[in-house]
Amino acid sequence: MTDSLHDLALQLDQFAKDRDWQQFHSPKNLASALVVEAGELLEHFQWLTDEQSRALVPEKREAVAAEAADVLLYLIQLTSALGIDPIEAAQAKLKLNELKYPVDRARGSSKKYDEL
Amino acid sequence: MTDSLHDLALQLDQFAKDRDWQQFHSPKNLASALVVEAGELLEHFQWLTDEQSRALVPEKREAVAAEAADVLLYLIQLTSALGIDPIEAAQAKLKLNELKYPVDRARGSSKKYDEL
Amino acid sequence: MTDSLHDLALQLDQFAKDRDWQQFHSPKNLASALVVEAGELLEHFQWLTDEQSRALVPEKREAVAAEAADVLLYLIQLTSALGIDPIEAAQAKLKLNELKYPVDRARGSSKKYDEL
Amino acid sequence: MTDSLHDLALQLDQFAKDRDWQQFHSPKNLASALVVEAGELLEHFQWLTDEQSRALVPEKREAVAAEAADVLLYLIQLTSALGIDPIEAAQAKLKLNELKYPVDRARGSSKKYDEL
Repeated sequence: MTDSLHDLALQLDQFAKDRDWQQFHSPKNLASALVVEAGELLEHFQWLTDEQSRALVPEKREAVAAEAADVLLYLIQLTSALGIDPIEAAQAKLKLNELKYPVDRARGSSKKYDEL
Repeated sequence: MTDSLHDLALQLDQFAKDRDWQQFHSPKNLASALVVEAGELLEHFQWLTDEQSRALVPEKREAVAAEAADVLLYLIQLTSALGIDPIEAAQAKLKLNELKYPVDRARGSSKKYDEL
Repeated sequence: MTDSLHDLALQLDQFAKDRDWQQFHSPKNLASALVVEAGELLEHFQWLTDEQSRALVPEKREAVAAEAADVLLYLIQLTSALGIDPIEAAQAKLKLNELKYPVDRARGSSKKYDEL
Repeated sequence: MTDSLHDLALQLDQFAKDRDWQQFHSPKNLASALVVEAGELLEHFQWLTDEQSRALVPEKREAVAAEAADVLLYLIQLTSALGIDPIEAAQAKLKLNELKYPVDRARGSSKKYDEL
């Protein structure tokens, strides 16, 4: 894990300890909280068009940043609780995606996205 | 942003360029994809008890790591597209939470979590 | 509740009893399952434009119908477990929305949607 | 579709027409709104234990009912926009689930839930 993510992990761990909140922080609950925050993030975009979402006014951008922060904070707490290194996992997934979506076959097509 | 998150951002940007996928990567769509992956992450926990979620078998832990990776990859792409530094945003939110939930009032209580 | 929703509620209750699954069906878990299914529903749309989503091919429409079914099944189980009548609740919410979004002020504006 | 769901569908359709909101109600956007509401529903449970979720105080139960209503309202609008009968789809899915999870094999086991 990087220094910054590791710092946040330590701060979050202390934050929960100080408030005796570890009892609520089972991985199950942290995963729920993460989804809830991801929903709050999506809410800012739900009635916008793609174009509008590419041209957010500053206030909206700030609101989205706050929700993105919430998602990251829960992601760090969840992976930390499970002994997962999120950067390592992300790098591994990216390599897998490069194999799953070879450039010559995937170029410009949303069909690859739709193959489930 | 940290070096590792920045590296991932650059790799993801190139990954999308190589496949001509930027057309699909509006912030609106990236926020949707993030929620979808967060749901796949939660799915691993939906029938488990809190205790079971604190004692995952290795295969389950690996599956959760892969979904956490997906969430992080979309979070990086979304914040990158909007010019948001996720680490900075997370640090700011943590400071805000420290003011919102003072130790002396928040200790041990889930009520603070329930005050909406 | 209507006859059809009530029938489904009874069938779902028997389905769970037959398999000894009520132990997993706490309202907490049912709410999680509902979100997971809602994510699977959204997944079908995540890379589509608004226009494409208004013109789904039959296979895609069938896939969406199956996910909508999953969402409804969990919604029925959750409200049933909590003694909530979903039709009554929906009618009440619609009345509330009529007061929250008076026609003369809400007409044509997405701003009402964005006022949080 | 049942009379009650059909009534709600007609009322929702008129509600949107009156406010010139059909422009925002692409199936893509409705699916996003549904997920957002499902997240707000889950939020009421995220720090509760299974047992606590089976014994909600009346105020919490009312709050959950309002969110369940929101989910149902968007589900009706989405299925209506796509010409899907949600009751028919739910009945079909339930039959499929009876085949997928035969009583003799599925009884008492969460493993069937975990087979993805």
